[in-house]
Amino acid sequence: MVAKNTHSTIATIDLGSNSFHMLLAKIDDDKVRVLEQLGEKVQLAAGINQDLQLDEASMERGYECLKRFAQFVSDMPLDCVRVVGTNALREARNRKVFIKKAEEILQHPIEIISGREEARLIYVGVAHTLRSSKEKRLVIDIGGGSTEIIIGRDLDTLLLESLQMGCVSYNKRFFMGEKLTANRYAQAYTSARLELMSVEQSIQKMGWQEIVGCSGTIKAIANACKFAGFTTPDADITREGIIWLKQEILKLGDVEKLNIDGIKNDRKAILPSGLAILEAVFDALNLDKMIYSEGALREGVLYDQLGRDSSENAQERTIASLQERYRVDIEQAKRVSDKALEALAQVADVWELEDERYAELLDWAAKVHEIGLDIAHYQYHKHSAYLLEYSDLLGFSRREQQSLALLVRGHRRNIPRDKFEDAVEDSESLLRLCILLRFAILFHHIRSDQNGPQVKLIASNKKLKIQFPEDWLENNPLTFADFTQEAVWLKRIGYELVVS
Amino acid sequence: MVAKNTHSTIATIDLGSNSFHMLLAKIDDDKVRVLEQLGEKVQLAAGINQDLQLDEASMERGYECLKRFAQFVSDMPLDCVRVVGTNALREARNRKVFIKKAEEILQHPIEIISGREEARLIYVGVAHTLRSSKEKRLVIDIGGGSTEIIIGRDLDTLLLESLQMGCVSYNKRFFMGEKLTANRYAQAYTSARLELMSVEQSIQKMGWQEIVGCSGTIKAIANACKFAGFTTPDADITREGIIWLKQEILKLGDVEKLNIDGIKNDRKAILPSGLAILEAVFDALNLDKMIYSEGALREGVLYDQLGRDSSENAQERTIASLQERYRVDIEQAKRVSDKALEALAQVADVWELEDERYAELLDWAAKVHEIGLDIAHYQYHKHSAYLLEYSDLLGFSRREQQSLALLVRGHRRNIPRDKFEDAVEDSESLLRLCILLRFAILFHHIRSDQNGPQVKLIASNKKLKIQFPEDWLENNPLTFADFTQEAVWLKRIGYELVVS
Repeated sequence: MVAKNTHSTIATIDLGSNSFHMLLAKIDDDKVRVLEQLGEKVQLAAGINQDLQLDEASMERGYECLKRFAQFVSDMPLDCVRVVGTNALREARNRKVFIKKAEEILQHPIEIISGREEARLIYVGVAHTLRSSKEKRLVIDIGGGSTEIIIGRDLDTLLLESLQMGCVSYNKRFFMGEKLTANRYAQAYTSARLELMSVEQSIQKMGWQEIVGCSGTIKAIANACKFAGFTTPDADITREGIIWLKQEILKLGDVEKLNIDGIKNDRKAILPSGLAILEAVFDALNLDKMIYSEGALREGVLYDQLGRDSSENAQERTIASLQERYRVDIEQAKRVSDKALEALAQVADVWELEDERYAELLDWAAKVHEIGLDIAHYQYHKHSAYLLEYSDLLGFSRREQQSLALLVRGHRRNIPRDKFEDAVEDSESLLRLCILLRFAILFHHIRSDQNGPQVKLIASNKKLKIQFPEDWLENNPLTFADFTQEAVWLKRIGYELVVS
Repeated sequence: MVAKNTHSTIATIDLGSNSFHMLLAKIDDDKVRVLEQLGEKVQLAAGINQDLQLDEASMERGYECLKRFAQFVSDMPLDCVRVVGTNALREARNRKVFIKKAEEILQHPIEIISGREEARLIYVGVAHTLRSSKEKRLVIDIGGGSTEIIIGRDLDTLLLESLQMGCVSYNKRFFMGEKLTANRYAQAYTSARLELMSVEQSIQKMGWQEIVGCSGTIKAIANACKFAGFTTPDADITREGIIWLKQEILKLGDVEKLNIDGIKNDRKAILPSGLAILEAVFDALNLDKMIYSEGALREGVLYDQLGRDSSENAQERTIASLQERYRVDIEQAKRVSDKALEALAQVADVWELEDERYAELLDWAAKVHEIGLDIAHYQYHKHSAYLLEYSDLLGFSRREQQSLALLVRGHRRNIPRDKFEDAVEDSESLLRLCILLRFAILFHHIRSDQNGPQVKLIASNKKLKIQFPEDWLENNPLTFADFTQEAVWLKRIGYELVVS
C-alpha cells in the first residue's frame, strides 16, 4: 500500500465534506516537490439529509470533480495513489453507492478513514510542514463536517479528538435560507461549545506551548485578520480579530456583502458557521492566538504514504497495542502468525494471494484473533470481530478494518459465507485467507512450544490438501479428529479439505 | 438481593441442564442448617434441538418439577430465594418462554448465569464445604450441559473456565439410540479432549496441590470406585478406577445392565458420556486421583446469598475492574454517580424507585457508562452497552447485565424506547433510571471539580421538573442549552422536562 521511492510521482486525493482536493508530487531522493494542486468545493456534507442519505445532486458534483482528477491519476500505479474520504462519507448511509462509482472513475480504491485517523494524518501534515520543534503543539482543523483537535510533539501525537461539527454541516443547520442574525450565530456558537464540553478539560489538562490551525476556514479567517491589521509577528489569528470579524459580519447581516481580500466568494457562505466554531474553540480552550499552517490532511496522507512516519508503522503499533490492551497470549499469536504465513507461502500462487497486502492481513488477523477472549470466552470470535470493526485503529482504513474483522469472525466454528460476500475485498480471497488462518490455529490448538510436524499444503481451486509426515496422524488422533471436524466446516462453504 | 440474617429461612434453586435442585436452609446466628434437599432429573439439555430450541416436553418436565418446589418457596420473601439457570438455559434460544412460565410458577425471578459465574459459584460452594486450606485447589464440575474448571485458593478464585461439554448433551450426541461401543466412547472422549485443548496449557501452568470433583457424574464415578475397591485414603476417584469402570461398561455393551451400589438407575444412561469427559479431563491435565465434594453450585449460591463472600462484593469488584480495564475517568464517574443517587433520592417515592436494587443499578451504570470510549468515541454509548451485555461479569446475573447495558445504552442521544420495552425489568422504571442518569451526566457535562448549583428535582408521572437557583441558568447559557436539547430527547419517549 505504501509507495516505493522508485516511483517518482505520487498522488493524494482527499474527499472532504466541503471540498475535494488532489495533490500530485514528485519524489526525488526522498525530497518532495509538489507538481499540481487541485481543489473543488463539492460540498458533499450539504447533500446529506436527515436520514443520513447523500442526495443525487451532491454525488453528481463529486463524480464531475473526480472525472477531472482522474485524468491525472487513473493510469498511475495502484500503490502511488491514495484516496481518503472523511466525515461526510463516514456519515452517509448510502456511501457504498458513491464509493463504487467514484472508484470506477478514479480507477483507484477509496479508503474511508475514522475521525481519529483523520486527526492523526492532519497532525502528520502539520508536523512535516512546520519547522521541527520539541514543544507541544495544539492543532485545530475545522473541516466541512468535523473538527479535529490534536496535541502532539514533534512527529508523535499525544491526544486525538474528532468532533461532529463542521462549517458545511453547521451552515446547513443554523444559517441556511435564513437572515444572518446575532441570535443564529449564538445558536451555532452554543452548539459548538456543547460539543466541546466533554473534551475541553482533558485537552487543557494536557497543555501545549504552540497553537496551530489549518483548513480553509482558518485560512480565510487568518486572511481577514491580516486584512484588518490584527495579525502579529507570532499570530495569524487573534481573539480580537475573531471578535472584529464577527461584528463585521453581523453588522452587514449578509455575508455576501463581505469584501475582504483573501476571502473568496465560495468561502463566504460558510464563513459564519466556521467562525462560530473557531470562536467556541477559542473560548472553550482559553486561546488568545493561533498560527496558520498550510499543511494538513492531504500533506499528512502524502507523507504517510512516503513512509517517513508510515502507516505501516502506525499499523504495527496499533496491532501491538491491541494485543497488549486485550491481554493476548503473545507467544500463541506469534506461533499462529508464523504458521499462517508459512502456509500462505505454499499456496499463494494457486490461490492468487501473492499481493503483499494479503500477507499483511493474515499476519494481523493471526495476531489479534483472540482479543475477544478478554470480553468473554463464549462466542469470543464475535467479540474479537466487534472490537476490530468498531475500534479507532490508527493507521487502518475502514476497508482494512472490515476485512480484518471478517477474517477474525470466521476463525472458528461456522464461517459466515454471506458476510464474506458482502465484503469490500474480493470475497474468495478473504475466504481463502480465512481457511489458512484456521489451519494455523488448529495446528497450534494445543498451544505448546513444540514445533509440530512438517506439513505440506497443496491447493487447487476449491480444495486444500494437507500432508502430514507418514504415520504422524495415526499417532496423533486428536489432531486427526480436529481436522476431520474442520473438513465438515469447510464443506459448508464449498471447500474440500483432505488430510493425509 | 442478598438475604438479611433477620430472615431465618432461605432457599436456593438450581435449574441445571441435567437436574433441577432445591436447597432449603435455616440460618441461625450465621450458622447454616439444611432443612430440605430436593432434586429431579428434568434433563432440559436433552430437549434442545439443533436449532437450539427447547422442546415442549422438556419444558413440561421442568414446570412439573417447579410446581413441587413452589410449594416451599412461592410464599417466601423475594430476597430469601435465589433461582439460577445454567447451560441449557444459556443455550436455548426460546428460553424466554420457559423463564416466564417458570417465574409465574415459582413466584420468584430466575437469573441465568454465565459459565464463568457458574464456575465462580461452584468454587464458593466447594470452598465452604471442604476444610479451609491455603493450598491451590483444582475443581472440576461435570454438569449436564457444561463442565466447569476452576483453580482457587481458600475463598478466592484464580482461574475460571466453562467448557461446552456435559453428560446430557454428550449422551445425546454420541450415545443416544445406539449400541454402546468402544468406538462411540472414543468419539465422546476425543471430542472432550478437543474442547480441553485450548485451555489445558494455561491450567497446567497455574498448577495446584489438591484436586476436587463435584456434580452427580463425579459422585456416581466415586461410588463405582468405592464399590470396586479403587478408593484410597486420599482419593475418591483414581485413574485406575476410571479405566476399570470404562472396561466394565464397554464389556457389558449396555449400561442398563450395570449393577453397582450407589449408581442409581436414572444416572446409568448418562454415565458413559460423563465418564468419557472425566477421562479426558484426567488425561488432558495429567491427573491421577481426585476427591469428591458434596458442595457445588447450589451451596455456592446459598453462601453467596448469605453474603459471606457475597455477590455484592463480587459485583463491586467487577465494576471496579471494568473501570480500570477500560480506563474510565474515575473522578467523573464518581461525580455522576453521586449526583444520580442524589437525584434518585429526590424522586424515588413518586417514581416508585425505592427498591434498593434501583439505586445499585443506577450507581453501577454511572460508574461504567463511559467504558465504550476505550473502543472509540463515535457511538461510544453503544460500545459501552456491548461490553456490559457480553462480558463475563462475575457476580452479575444475565438480567442485571441486560438492565445495566440498557441504561448505559440510553445515556446519551436517542433513548431506544423499543429496547426498553423488551427488557426483563419493568420498562418504565428503567426509563426513569435512565432519565436520572442522563440528568447527572448533563449536570457534570463540563467534567470539572466544581460543585455546581443546588438543584431541586420534582417528579410526577411522566414529567420531571428541575429547579436551578434563581438567575443561575441566565448566567450559564450553555447548561440551559444542554437541558433544552435534553427536553427534546425526553419528549420522544413521552416525558416532559421542565427546567427553571
